[in-house]
Amino acid sequence: MSLGEFELITRYFAQQASRPDVLLGIGDDAAVLDVRTDRKLVVAMDTIVEGVHFPEAISAADIGYRALAVNLSDLAAMGAEPAWFMLSLSMPTSSEQWVEQFAAGMFALAREHNLALIGGDTVKGPLVVTVQIAGWVEEDCWLTRSGARPGDAIMVSGALGDAAGALTSLQHDFPETVAVRALRQRFLRPTPRIELGRALRGLASAAMDVSDGLLTDLDKLCAASQCGADIDIDTLPISAHLRSTFDDQACVDYALAGGDDYEIIFTIPADAVAKLDSSDPGCTRIGSITVGAGVVCHRAGQIFNAERRGYDHFNKERSQ
Amino acid sequence: MSLGEFELITRYFAQQASRPDVLLGIGDDAAVLDVRTDRKLVVAMDTIVEGVHFPEAISAADIGYRALAVNLSDLAAMGAEPAWFMLSLSMPTSSEQWVEQFAAGMFALAREHNLALIGGDTVKGPLVVTVQIAGWVEEDCWLTRSGARPGDAIMVSGALGDAAGALTSLQHDFPETVAVRALRQRFLRPTPRIELGRALRGLASAAMDVSDGLLTDLDKLCAASQCGADIDIDTLPISAHLRSTFDDQACVDYALAGGDDYEIIFTIPADAVAKLDSSDPGCTRIGSITVGAGVVCHRAGQIFNAERRGYDHFNKERSQ
Repeated sequence: MSLGEFELITRYFAQQASRPDVLLGIGDDAAVLDVRTDRKLVVAMDTIVEGVHFPEAISAADIGYRALAVNLSDLAAMGAEPAWFMLSLSMPTSSEQWVEQFAAGMFALAREHNLALIGGDTVKGPLVVTVQIAGWVEEDCWLTRSGARPGDAIMVSGALGDAAGALTSLQHDFPETVAVRALRQRFLRPTPRIELGRALRGLASAAMDVSDGLLTDLDKLCAASQCGADIDIDTLPISAHLRSTFDDQACVDYALAGGDDYEIIFTIPADAVAKLDSSDPGCTRIGSITVGAGVVCHRAGQIFNAERRGYDHFNKERSQ
Repeated sequence: MSLGEFELITRYFAQQASRPDVLLGIGDDAAVLDVRTDRKLVVAMDTIVEGVHFPEAISAADIGYRALAVNLSDLAAMGAEPAWFMLSLSMPTSSEQWVEQFAAGMFALAREHNLALIGGDTVKGPLVVTVQIAGWVEEDCWLTRSGARPGDAIMVSGALGDAAGALTSLQHDFPETVAVRALRQRFLRPTPRIELGRALRGLASAAMDVSDGLLTDLDKLCAASQCGADIDIDTLPISAHLRSTFDDQACVDYALAGGDDYEIIFTIPADAVAKLDSSDPGCTRIGSITVGAGVVCHRAGQIFNAERRGYDHFNKERSQ
């Protein structure tokens, strides 16, 4: 069944729980919001495109979840608390079932974070999903990429490379073992590290999320902080599921250059590492900030040359 | 020449003039903004898709201008003053020339309104442009679609139907007369009615912008206000350029059902019409709000049945 644009929005997007700071929500030319006077507004916007950011086979619910998750991850990297989001959904048809599942996946995550959908656009076109997200952070407490200093420890949350492993397993149709299923869950339903980001306020010197690959993203952090980084390959947090599915070379490659994990990479003065809460997702020290420029990898005392550095939409040389 | 994503953003999008309320702009995981404590935040997000919202032949500069203009129009309809915007640009290649022209078209309009680009995303994919925009409106002063009351005058700014006429002229390759050129300018470079929207605060009972066609959009305003509307066809503001290019039947059809004009339709108590400033773009009374439901058109004392009502992305029956 095909619904009109107006009916689609009313039925699946407009009737969700709201927040008291939403003075006017979905259904007018714009939304009107009450702002906090004791905090700063933090905003991000990320787009996912079918066939570029996710394979065509993945479910509508996973696409809805993921479109929101990658944006929440940006707020996490700033130390912000989520508040509202807007959705632009370009899609080829208006299959009611597809939209229902898409909304279910998206709102499952939104509810976890007390996020209200406040507006957006629904248009006919190729499958492209853009989410804009807004949240709040205390005055002068936000995390940036630019505060890393030589000697700081480089830490990363959770495990790296799972999402890249999952993508390979989908592209090559791996049998669905327990490990493969776990990896795919990590790709399809990444966990935005909001709590960790909040805990890092006042503690981390710099932070960002790992979306394009550790080396590429750490390069950006180093450039913003005008410093270098030294990474010890043997300390990279690689999950048992990834280890049991791929050989060491692939695991290291995925951990260094695979994007889509949406873990948080952050730097912290070495003497403050002990202050980190060791609870979920857990953080691992993988190296140190240096006075140099760029990222250098070591393994067993030797320089380690990575095969790939990460993903760039318009620069194939960098991504291969 | 093809640039990487990071270089593209740095070169064409990151180095634009900023505002003092932008505490952290482009280049981190998110932007950080200082908020006003005496106003409410107004936000909108609109997407334009190649081949759906604009023909493939139009220039990068016009696409950039238009993507921002349609969002500014939403703020205008709320009576808001623009502040910041975010851009998601999905494009098949990263032609430097294309991006340069796109940015030039977009920033030309941004500068007019003291708007700062604060972030977004640049990805490889089909040509889809999403802009999210934010602005400010005084407490309890914003305009909505829901305040129209029976007896109110229905007014529209500028002229209607020019953009639809322009689209026909492009699709059928009309010779470039002065009139055709003027119509095309109205389609490619619509003027967001920000000043008018600001002037309507405290004066208009309801407002919205005309993006999908007068009848479709007025239907939405009537539904939100729980009232009906009576339109006098002979009062529709139709430009001399449209009249000189099309016959009366086409002019009326474009004025009633053609979208993309981005004029403001608003309602105002009949005794307040005289308070409206008669300066540019000029506003015309086209009918009255009634106690009924839906929009009824009259011409020379007779009921007038419109051929089409306007555009809906997923409901062809309504749009034809």
